[in-house]
Amino acid sequence: MEEINSIEVVPCTESNYLKPFRVVSVLIFNTTSHCFILVKQFRPAVYMCEWEKAKTKTPQAAEKTEEGEASESQEAQPASEEESSSQWPPASAGVTYELCAGLVDKPDLSLEEIARQEVLEECGYDVPASKLKRITSYRSGVGVTGAKQTMFYAEVSDDNCVSAGGGEPHEGEFIEVVKVPLHEAMTFAYDERIPKTMGVIFSFIWFHNNMSPKYKISTNV
Amino acid sequence: MEEINSIEVVPCTESNYLKPFRVVSVLIFNTTSHCFILVKQFRPAVYMCEWEKAKTKTPQAAEKTEEGEASESQEAQPASEEESSSQWPPASAGVTYELCAGLVDKPDLSLEEIARQEVLEECGYDVPASKLKRITSYRSGVGVTGAKQTMFYAEVSDDNCVSAGGGEPHEGEFIEVVKVPLHEAMTFAYDERIPKTMGVIFSFIWFHNNMSPKYKISTNV
Repeated sequence: MEEINSIEVVPCTESNYLKPFRVVSVLIFNTTSHCFILVKQFRPAVYMCEWEKAKTKTPQAAEKTEEGEASESQEAQPASEEESSSQWPPASAGVTYELCAGLVDKPDLSLEEIARQEVLEECGYDVPASKLKRITSYRSGVGVTGAKQTMFYAEVSDDNCVSAGGGEPHEGEFIEVVKVPLHEAMTFAYDERIPKTMGVIFSFIWFHNNMSPKYKISTNV
Repeated sequence: MEEINSIEVVPCTESNYLKPFRVVSVLIFNTTSHCFILVKQFRPAVYMCEWEKAKTKTPQAAEKTEEGEASESQEAQPASEEESSSQWPPASAGVTYELCAGLVDKPDLSLEEIARQEVLEECGYDVPASKLKRITSYRSGVGVTGAKQTMFYAEVSDDNCVSAGGGEPHEGEFIEVVKVPLHEAMTFAYDERIPKTMGVIFSFIWFHNNMSPKYKISTNV
């Protein structure tokens, strides 16, 4: 491993979206309703995956559910007959459940302050940065972006809710705020029909392992 | 969310590496030595992140360790004075610990069979596909690739070890096989100085939660 000594770095001129970056994500727990607050986003890259998959199947086969996978037609049906007769999956095929998260693009702010802004913009909760607890950090997308991702935990209450959230439409964000009740969290985490990121699965289990003395959580998984 | 109904898909002509894909990953546990088997890889994208970070700091500041982060110089020193006087981090700054993993690029093989091949090629253990237990699946790199990743668990023994592993050098893989003793696993998972993927952290904790009746694991974290 340490024999690698000839490294040439050349600029990637083809994309503005592959710049090295850092990311923060936040597991939000509402102590009033005992729910986790997630965001539901349409992800073009995920949609492309499903579109590629649909292309390789006949329309009939595409309707069948692969073992352990979500049915693309589970959440929403195509809007018209024209669409349903094509091999375009419904928009819901590109939707994933994720932790509230954002790019670290303000060098003068701490990670906690950036995480706090994301919680406010995306989910509508106004909590002080000092209430954010660091869970851990790791590398995401090691094959393409190599971003360092830092995960935080934030407890909020209904009193902290100041807006509906939803992200910044002018930045192209399509975000829906979703609540997952605490008692359904472990089932949600391991239900493969629900498209989600590893951050959601890990953080629910982290909560289960570390917060269960404080909050009761179902363990029947 | 379901109001998204105008989707235009245009080919990405700039890169061969951003095609939609599926990925398998495998948590390998050696029941003879009670160790997890990970791979240590040099990731150009991760190195780029560290290089960008180093550029924004003075050489002196770059040597300081940010709170909760690994020191880039911890594992390996630059090979020459010329290198150390530049702002190029050592090659070790681009290294991450990961689960054994690979792209699903053979449509006639099952996910288990592809996972089996990766365990053999990367880590040198020959185990039947039928011994692979599916843990869960999720979306990785939702912002860029949207890959669907399926995670498996494989128990191996020293008897299954048929080669040193190391991947396929002609495919540009630089892989070192690394053992993490069971009793150090939870400390390893949460030690932010050790660069790793979320898959490693999650799968160690999954093992802790689901295999602990069978194998004793330290819980002092």
